[in-house]
Amino acid sequence: MTRATTRTGRRPGSSGTRDAILGAARSRFAEHGFDRTSVRSIAADAGVDPALVHHYFGTKRALFLAAIAIPADPAMVLAGVADAPVEEIGERFLRAVVGVWESPHREGLLAAFRSAITGESVGLVRSFLTEVVLTEIGHRVDDPAGSAALRASLVASQMAGLMVTRYILELEPLATLPPERVVHLVAPTLQRYLTGDLG
Amino acid sequence: MTRATTRTGRRPGSSGTRDAILGAARSRFAEHGFDRTSVRSIAADAGVDPALVHHYFGTKRALFLAAIAIPADPAMVLAGVADAPVEEIGERFLRAVVGVWESPHREGLLAAFRSAITGESVGLVRSFLTEVVLTEIGHRVDDPAGSAALRASLVASQMAGLMVTRYILELEPLATLPPERVVHLVAPTLQRYLTGDLG
Repeated sequence: MTRATTRTGRRPGSSGTRDAILGAARSRFAEHGFDRTSVRSIAADAGVDPALVHHYFGTKRALFLAAIAIPADPAMVLAGVADAPVEEIGERFLRAVVGVWESPHREGLLAAFRSAITGESVGLVRSFLTEVVLTEIGHRVDDPAGSAALRASLVASQMAGLMVTRYILELEPLATLPPERVVHLVAPTLQRYLTGDLG
Repeated sequence: MTRATTRTGRRPGSSGTRDAILGAARSRFAEHGFDRTSVRSIAADAGVDPALVHHYFGTKRALFLAAIAIPADPAMVLAGVADAPVEEIGERFLRAVVGVWESPHREGLLAAFRSAITGESVGLVRSFLTEVVLTEIGHRVDDPAGSAALRASLVASQMAGLMVTRYILELEPLATLPPERVVHLVAPTLQRYLTGDLG
């Protein structure tokens, strides 16, 4: 009922309020991570009612994605990965992520990544990778039990480096390969990290 | 004879001259790359005699490493890789580079890398990776002929990402694994990129 009230008939508010919420969200998420941050605490920092946060941004997850300037929800991007056969999960994951990189979202993603590298939002990107993205695939690859975090951080190492060398350093020939060729070349690496015997 | 003259009995000059040479070198290398930049052109930009450049920095290669703030000469770091059996080249390369990362050189390397990511010295880091490092190993892995550049850029993608996730984003558990464990986990990726069938 409360939600319906806040969503009905309200006109867009001032961008100042929206920015204050985003700023508070960035600070909270960067310091405490995604799971341990509440919408209530962000609202308090921004000096607004929690209902207003939901009005502007929807869920806590959507607020996080807005705060980190990630324009695509990983749950949607990775929807096709969740039900992939486990032996194809590396290729499906890579194709989904490269698909976002090759879309108009690229600039926003690179900006978020650059901020993390220069220290402005390391905490945000770390939370994004470990708490949001990994939720989507971690449960599929936790074999032996407890190995999912290591597998995921290895995957992140290849993905982060692929983004850096292809789109930022623009190393040739990697920078100009067709996306599907990149998937073909790198997918076996991800598959080994996700499901291989790591010794 | 000229060289002997410039190196004999000369006292260290002002740091202003040294900095002018370094600044000119950074601009030249970033714009034209390593191979197509001459010590003479750098000296001209800095308004000094080329002999003075050699006096301060030694070879063009050493000047490049100083310009990019790379504190360890890749030729020395990779000396043990050049004569490794080809089936061990991935592991040897990774162990050599991780060894530098785990040394006091780390901060300088991370600084150079951050500068590249934020656009200040993309050209420098690209030259370092493609013209300097790859010279050390490219000829070992150019099979089939012409594949060395692709193999090298794939290796760079994993190495750049490993540096980012372990030392900058500090993703766990990758960030705190013993170096030798990292080598064990990632070496097969590099070996496939260097000598595997890339299809």
